[in-house]
Amino acid sequence: MTDAAVRQNIHPKKPATSKRTPAGGAPTAAHSAEEANEPRIDIAAVTELLLGTWAETRHEARELIKDPALWRIDGQPMPEHRERVLGQLRLLVENKGSRRAFPKEYGGLDNNGANLAGFMELVLADPSLQIKSGVQWGLFGSAIYQLGTKKHWDAWLSDVIELELPGAFAMTETGHGSDVASIGTTATYDPDTEEFVIHTPFRGAWKDYLGNAALHGKAATVFAQLITGGVNYGVHCFFVPLRDDEGNFLPGIGGEDDGVKGGLNGIDNGRLHFDHVRVPRFNLLNRYGDVASDGTYTSEISSPGRRFFTMLGALVQGRVSLDGAATTGTALALYIALTYANQRRQFDSGSGSDEVVLLDYGKHQRRLLPLLAQNYAQFFANDELLQKFDGVFSGRADTPAEREDLETLAAALKPLSTWNALSTIQEAREACGGSGFLAENRLVGLHQDLDVYVTFEGDNNVLLQLVGKRLLGDYARQFRGADAAKLASFAARQAAGKIFHGAGLRQFGQSVADRGSVARSVELGLRAEQQHELLAGRVQQMVADIAGRLRPAAKASKAEAAEIFNANQAELIEAARAHGELLQWEAFTDGIAGVEDEGTLQVLTWLRDLFGLHLIEKHLAWYLINGRLSAQRAASVSRYIDRLTLRLRPHAQDLVDAYGFAPEHVRAPIASGAERERQDEAREYYAALAASGEAPVPEKSLKKK
Amino acid sequence: MTDAAVRQNIHPKKPATSKRTPAGGAPTAAHSAEEANEPRIDIAAVTELLLGTWAETRHEARELIKDPALWRIDGQPMPEHRERVLGQLRLLVENKGSRRAFPKEYGGLDNNGANLAGFMELVLADPSLQIKSGVQWGLFGSAIYQLGTKKHWDAWLSDVIELELPGAFAMTETGHGSDVASIGTTATYDPDTEEFVIHTPFRGAWKDYLGNAALHGKAATVFAQLITGGVNYGVHCFFVPLRDDEGNFLPGIGGEDDGVKGGLNGIDNGRLHFDHVRVPRFNLLNRYGDVASDGTYTSEISSPGRRFFTMLGALVQGRVSLDGAATTGTALALYIALTYANQRRQFDSGSGSDEVVLLDYGKHQRRLLPLLAQNYAQFFANDELLQKFDGVFSGRADTPAEREDLETLAAALKPLSTWNALSTIQEAREACGGSGFLAENRLVGLHQDLDVYVTFEGDNNVLLQLVGKRLLGDYARQFRGADAAKLASFAARQAAGKIFHGAGLRQFGQSVADRGSVARSVELGLRAEQQHELLAGRVQQMVADIAGRLRPAAKASKAEAAEIFNANQAELIEAARAHGELLQWEAFTDGIAGVEDEGTLQVLTWLRDLFGLHLIEKHLAWYLINGRLSAQRAASVSRYIDRLTLRLRPHAQDLVDAYGFAPEHVRAPIASGAERERQDEAREYYAALAASGEAPVPEKSLKKK
Repeated sequence: MTDAAVRQNIHPKKPATSKRTPAGGAPTAAHSAEEANEPRIDIAAVTELLLGTWAETRHEARELIKDPALWRIDGQPMPEHRERVLGQLRLLVENKGSRRAFPKEYGGLDNNGANLAGFMELVLADPSLQIKSGVQWGLFGSAIYQLGTKKHWDAWLSDVIELELPGAFAMTETGHGSDVASIGTTATYDPDTEEFVIHTPFRGAWKDYLGNAALHGKAATVFAQLITGGVNYGVHCFFVPLRDDEGNFLPGIGGEDDGVKGGLNGIDNGRLHFDHVRVPRFNLLNRYGDVASDGTYTSEISSPGRRFFTMLGALVQGRVSLDGAATTGTALALYIALTYANQRRQFDSGSGSDEVVLLDYGKHQRRLLPLLAQNYAQFFANDELLQKFDGVFSGRADTPAEREDLETLAAALKPLSTWNALSTIQEAREACGGSGFLAENRLVGLHQDLDVYVTFEGDNNVLLQLVGKRLLGDYARQFRGADAAKLASFAARQAAGKIFHGAGLRQFGQSVADRGSVARSVELGLRAEQQHELLAGRVQQMVADIAGRLRPAAKASKAEAAEIFNANQAELIEAARAHGELLQWEAFTDGIAGVEDEGTLQVLTWLRDLFGLHLIEKHLAWYLINGRLSAQRAASVSRYIDRLTLRLRPHAQDLVDAYGFAPEHVRAPIASGAERERQDEAREYYAALAASGEAPVPEKSLKKK
Repeated sequence: MTDAAVRQNIHPKKPATSKRTPAGGAPTAAHSAEEANEPRIDIAAVTELLLGTWAETRHEARELIKDPALWRIDGQPMPEHRERVLGQLRLLVENKGSRRAFPKEYGGLDNNGANLAGFMELVLADPSLQIKSGVQWGLFGSAIYQLGTKKHWDAWLSDVIELELPGAFAMTETGHGSDVASIGTTATYDPDTEEFVIHTPFRGAWKDYLGNAALHGKAATVFAQLITGGVNYGVHCFFVPLRDDEGNFLPGIGGEDDGVKGGLNGIDNGRLHFDHVRVPRFNLLNRYGDVASDGTYTSEISSPGRRFFTMLGALVQGRVSLDGAATTGTALALYIALTYANQRRQFDSGSGSDEVVLLDYGKHQRRLLPLLAQNYAQFFANDELLQKFDGVFSGRADTPAEREDLETLAAALKPLSTWNALSTIQEAREACGGSGFLAENRLVGLHQDLDVYVTFEGDNNVLLQLVGKRLLGDYARQFRGADAAKLASFAARQAAGKIFHGAGLRQFGQSVADRGSVARSVELGLRAEQQHELLAGRVQQMVADIAGRLRPAAKASKAEAAEIFNANQAELIEAARAHGELLQWEAFTDGIAGVEDEGTLQVLTWLRDLFGLHLIEKHLAWYLINGRLSAQRAASVSRYIDRLTLRLRPHAQDLVDAYGFAPEHVRAPIASGAERERQDEAREYYAALAASGEAPVPEKSLKKK
């Protein structure tokens, strides 16, 4: 399905005669790159470009998930689905899919980047499989590995990798999700027995929404307020056994099933509560804070706030992998919708030719092609994120600054890609009409399963607010001790400065590669430098404006300060989103900078331009209000986009083929070629009928006589 | 849950002491109208206002669906769900829920408006119930009643009403959905036997996505190309028996199950095909076209095109009822999300007070309150649509012009309300975080079930394109025979003209009631007249601009003309959307014009203003580019919205309580008060702990010592 031989067959050079106008006619636009006689992308090379640094592992993972045993079965009742996914995790173990992130001495492969790259691909098989593996190895296993020390690794890590010890990651509570620091569960140290007493003091402190909690978890990494000697040292993580070998809760432990969810029903999410459950002192995962046998607390990190964020930061991989999985899931939806749009015909064009292929409609191009550009940007941005993650977690570039950058980058990208996933999958489903609503065509299942990605592992708005605060902090740092003259001078050359060092924003005309982009950008439109100037300038000005409005808060009462901040919250989140979009645009631009093949570079530059202009169009009012675009130039943005979508239209199939999906990954009948066969059969029927002379004449022609 | 007594308890006047700052503190904003000492709405009166002309029937329907037997069971496997919904239809029959639309002589009540009003409410019980009833009585039954004649009514109507004869509505085919005129199924008249031969000539002509087709349908109203005497008279509808009493297909009939869908899995959608199936001449539903025994075709409507659209128009009620059901489903989602947002607390404000109620966050107000305003607008617009529908179908105002207006109005409103449903439900689900993803809280189920509303009964984009063409037609009619001087004079006073007579656009300052709106509109903002001028002016200019760009098409070749139209398709759809938004705004404005109670009028005027400004903000770039708003005024739009959301925040609970839902309609644990109880329990626990003197001290306070 993904090779050129099949694709060439999609649009016969000579369209079959129409049932309405036997004379036939030309389609309204070139349908494929061959027809258009235009530069073409090198599909296989683009696949490697998209799969990025860990392409090899991704290919491995894609081979593995060709096995139907790993696929989602639509409509499978929840209990069976849960057991099936548990079995699939065992298949992963057998195929060495569970060990990439862990140290070699426990059977691991010590390859963090590859681990996440491979893990993301599981979304193509069944997102429940992806997320349940994430719970077992990315959260439960990672908590032991990242927050524990060697004694814990020796005790549990091999069993975790082998799935001998399935576990839950018990952080979130019914009463506190985003605000982890305020969880109610307590772990009080008892020096007499050298035990921690894990306790749930009220209903809101029940642990909730935990994968593996309802059925399969034998233990959990439980986050609780560590109390020793009458002092609360804040949230720490404890290893707590949950169930005996028969699956019964151990004494003091209780729970509930979360029941049916909007998606991901292959995972047994549930609630847990603890009634003075005692665990040995050993079970405190003590990498960042420890309690001596006499109850003395020690930590290398003296600031409670920094310690807390360091512990949370050690678990950043969840966000990194959701960014990638959302990107891959979105790609699948676009593959399905664009392949169908290239085959499905509906309505004749009024030009007397054949019925029109959906993707030839202006509206259809407009609704899908900018989303394709956006998805490409996400691939490049995710690979950058993955590289940064691997740098930090391999220890190669593990500094506090790098960690902070990694966390900010993940917090900026995960919200954008997960929201884009939902809106793109929804647009794809609508673009496929009624067949898009059938489970067999996968789009509805993808939407249902990926829905929760926007609120778990950090609610998207909360994450963006974190990014916004970081941007404000970086901005303020510029002016520490600055006098009025310096501020004024800064304001004057604002657009040219490198303001946001840490958060990933490149400096103008410096780190962003623009090799060849001037020549290849849309000729009358906004070239790469101008796109970058507009996108980066918006982030900078929004942050500066918000900082200005927040200034009175410094001298206000706490309540007034909170009110001032609250009045700017929505815009701060919007500034953070603008920052994330800029990062994606920069990653796209850098990502194609090394492309040697002329045709590929040309088409991908158009696609990058489409992404840039799509972002500018989305925020056009802002650019006008802030005098960054004249009304005339602003009006031309939409026209440039129209022109770009027309140019890219013949390349649409190449561009989704370059995702490199095999039929076993796609599995949607409407993207299998069946639609084309049906349309061909219908046209042949009408052609034969017309040739036979037996075709009924239309009433209209009767009246003309 | 819906009465003031319960509501008063939501925000204790004195917040309990915080666990962090035992001194407590004031919330950042007034939470309820009582606290704010502001005008309040008369909740019960607003409920009646929202329920509109057929409020009585709606109350009846809401009483009926308090019966748990009619409720959706989350996670119920598809086969059981299908049987359950069939049983629910029988319950409706027993409770006279199936007869409102039909003539009294067949057991009906002859009340079209009431029928749809009652039917829409079923969405609260289970959207599958709503849609399966729609298939049986709104589509299958309506086809017999609207397209057939007395002989058909005598033969089948009572059995249809009583569900003795469950049926499918077989219009859509796998190969043709939106383009009904091009369906492939044929009905060829055989004068020798006086029968029609129903036949499926190729795979693409299989009937598809038909409710009742997979299991329960005993017959179908089948749309097919009517061929007699070698002439194709276009699409007509035929009554075709499908199954015997044991449920087996009759000879020549075959089919398939559509399987699992993205939602609505209580309905047995399926495919049907016909192999030279013979039905008596009697079975042609012959209201608009007939075939004599010798095969002679006759029709009162000579134009094949007009005949086709008349037949389709007779089935407009599907769109009318989807507009209402989407509106009611959206209201439920907003009730749940806003009630939860009024109880759930997360993060302390930094002001040293208690944890903050979600709805006190600026972002949370911004994301939900404009959607509440939009939903109110939809209620008023739907009631206007329903009145027009009742006028036409009761015969009181059944003229071709009224029918055309009705169809245009339905085609404009259904896309907006169904899309708004999906985006609002999604925003509501995200605003509820992880608990929003649990099926028990209903938001995910609503999204899944309502998803297909945007593409069935007319794909939303296709419907809007129809509206756009109507707008272009009305526009062109102004200038028939106009000379250049007239055109120029028109252009000059464009903003003041009543251009679109038929399509529902009111004339400035004339039909739109603005009683009291000047005084009550946001004082510094855009008052009602200005909102109307901006919204209406945009529709007018967009249509005029598109018409101008399409002018060359008149003299172009067919292929070129098609290309010119295609280049403007996306914008024409956008113009139609703008028109629909204007209609909603006008309906809202008229809808509150008669309100006597001062407080109610004040609050609903703010809400109408919020809706208007929300629309203007959405299209701000257009207003700037087209010189309708200066950059300065445009910049103030967002500030006005911020101010309005702050003003409306204390009224949010009143406004969703005014939907009039009972606990049996809501059924979401997070909107039951359980969340408030949990938060109260947690605060009491911390307060008692603090009072006991046993509370652990925070590490931070330790360091200060």
